[in-house]
Amino acid sequence: MKVSILGGGAWGVTLAQVLLDNDHEVLVYDIKKENVDAINSLHHPFFNNVLPSNIKATTSISEVREFSNTYVISVPTKFIPSLLDTLNPLTRKSLFINVSKGIDPDNLESISDVVKRHIDKKYLIGYVNLTGPSHAEEVIDRKLTLLVASSKDTNLAKDVQKLFSNTTYIRVYTSNDVIGSEVCASAKNAIAVISGIISSVSSTGENARAALLTRGLKELVLVIKHLGGNKKTAYGLTGIGDLIVTATSLNSRNFRCGIRLGKGDSLETIYAEEKQTIEGIRSIEALHKLSLKYNFELPIISAAYDLIFNHLPVKECIEKLLLRDLTKE
Amino acid sequence: MKVSILGGGAWGVTLAQVLLDNDHEVLVYDIKKENVDAINSLHHPFFNNVLPSNIKATTSISEVREFSNTYVISVPTKFIPSLLDTLNPLTRKSLFINVSKGIDPDNLESISDVVKRHIDKKYLIGYVNLTGPSHAEEVIDRKLTLLVASSKDTNLAKDVQKLFSNTTYIRVYTSNDVIGSEVCASAKNAIAVISGIISSVSSTGENARAALLTRGLKELVLVIKHLGGNKKTAYGLTGIGDLIVTATSLNSRNFRCGIRLGKGDSLETIYAEEKQTIEGIRSIEALHKLSLKYNFELPIISAAYDLIFNHLPVKECIEKLLLRDLTKE
Repeated sequence: MKVSILGGGAWGVTLAQVLLDNDHEVLVYDIKKENVDAINSLHHPFFNNVLPSNIKATTSISEVREFSNTYVISVPTKFIPSLLDTLNPLTRKSLFINVSKGIDPDNLESISDVVKRHIDKKYLIGYVNLTGPSHAEEVIDRKLTLLVASSKDTNLAKDVQKLFSNTTYIRVYTSNDVIGSEVCASAKNAIAVISGIISSVSSTGENARAALLTRGLKELVLVIKHLGGNKKTAYGLTGIGDLIVTATSLNSRNFRCGIRLGKGDSLETIYAEEKQTIEGIRSIEALHKLSLKYNFELPIISAAYDLIFNHLPVKECIEKLLLRDLTKE
Repeated sequence: MKVSILGGGAWGVTLAQVLLDNDHEVLVYDIKKENVDAINSLHHPFFNNVLPSNIKATTSISEVREFSNTYVISVPTKFIPSLLDTLNPLTRKSLFINVSKGIDPDNLESISDVVKRHIDKKYLIGYVNLTGPSHAEEVIDRKLTLLVASSKDTNLAKDVQKLFSNTTYIRVYTSNDVIGSEVCASAKNAIAVISGIISSVSSTGENARAALLTRGLKELVLVIKHLGGNKKTAYGLTGIGDLIVTATSLNSRNFRCGIRLGKGDSLETIYAEEKQTIEGIRSIEALHKLSLKYNFELPIISAAYDLIFNHLPVKECIEKLLLRDLTKE
């Protein structure tokens, strides 16, 4: 099969390698010529590995559009609307596989919403979300990784399962809970930032972090419930699995961002130095707004919101997070 | 309040310090004179910290029995029956707070079963299980830790909540799911061993480990269901919380044991070198037997059982663990 990868970041290029390993053809699209040149010379700024010799990249959206009608969306969430505008007008029915993670803090749209709004229904085969615990750093090294393909259309989920699975290092499961997977993907980045904040302080260690993730899991379930997903998704690879891998590892830039916030660095400083988007900050904003809109409590998310946007001191943030009234679990 | 701590290991001494911090009185019982002497000289072989000056330890069970009718059980699970035999005959009604973690692989009894069998009903106020994500190494340093007191008697759970909670670093929640908390406490040690096995191999990293924990969580839920507990317990501090802290950290001797097993060390070698009991090995055996007895599948536990007791090679164990047929999640 031929697959167009929209976005030549770490995860896009890693998934391109997976598809090449599985004997598919790929073309990676990126707006930055230096990224495209790097990929075509088999190097990626994010990795030391030499990329497969048959990887190809381009800055030409029309070339990508001709290459394949199967698109992997792999750009920072804030760029997805303009990416889809650039991709239009489509001329044939297309499948969208999304691997970006976030909810828009301005209009509270999920990525499936964004795709539906930007892609003419008559050109849309369907939408599949591909998520799960997956540091790109490990997948590029072909370390064993389990993912989940979520789609309302079971056959499309199975198609994506077959596309990415192999017998050596990638296993893909299927699910029909698209909104659940989108909530989890967004919320785990938010909780990872908060986990970083917790980890920056000497009074809290692994015990407190595990408690935070456990209580964070409850918030994932709450958001899923209010948005009409299946709460079981929170207990699977897409939920707690991805939460564990993201919120406990220096491989996660959301976690690293939290550590720096906890130590007092400003968001502006962090944004200026990190080369990649920190989706967790946008997710904290989006989830906080969702809890206000639907009128339910997300204590962890709202404490983090207050720290980041209302300058709540770290100590008070941790008290809000983990020192609430004694109660039943 | 006065509390007798049965067992002067790392966790027993740590909880003694918590109780002293909370202005209670404690007496620690241990059968080994060198442990008792060390504690009385304010040092514990497991820690660098100087212990509180008012900590007291003894090898005399009658002294302990006179001191208090509130007992914290904190010895390796295999010694609990003989410990309770030594404690008998009781002369007044007593409360048992258990912090040991395991199910007996020989008769499949939980610790609440063992207490019921050994303590005359007329001397039993009740039984409370105290669990949650808690490396002793952090609690002794007074780092923030959240625990759960589980008892069929809500008032007893609340009593234990008040006993251990303070406003600085320990928060205790309550639950009425005793069997759920006992299953989780045992199973998390088992999964921690398996997580260590996974972590010993270069083909698997944090992605695979997070996947393992997620699928391990499903096995916790299955065991709880079959033993009549509440599956929600698996999703709380006692379940996934303690699983995260135990199965991802070198602070856990169960996790370290798994790493050594994965590298080919024999159980005999590991037992000879580790000074403390590795409950996870007994738990793997017990859970495996439970799955046979009640006729349900625990793929992860049974793969680990085969590796440890039937010499299944590590590579085949990982294939059994994570490379099963493609399916719905």
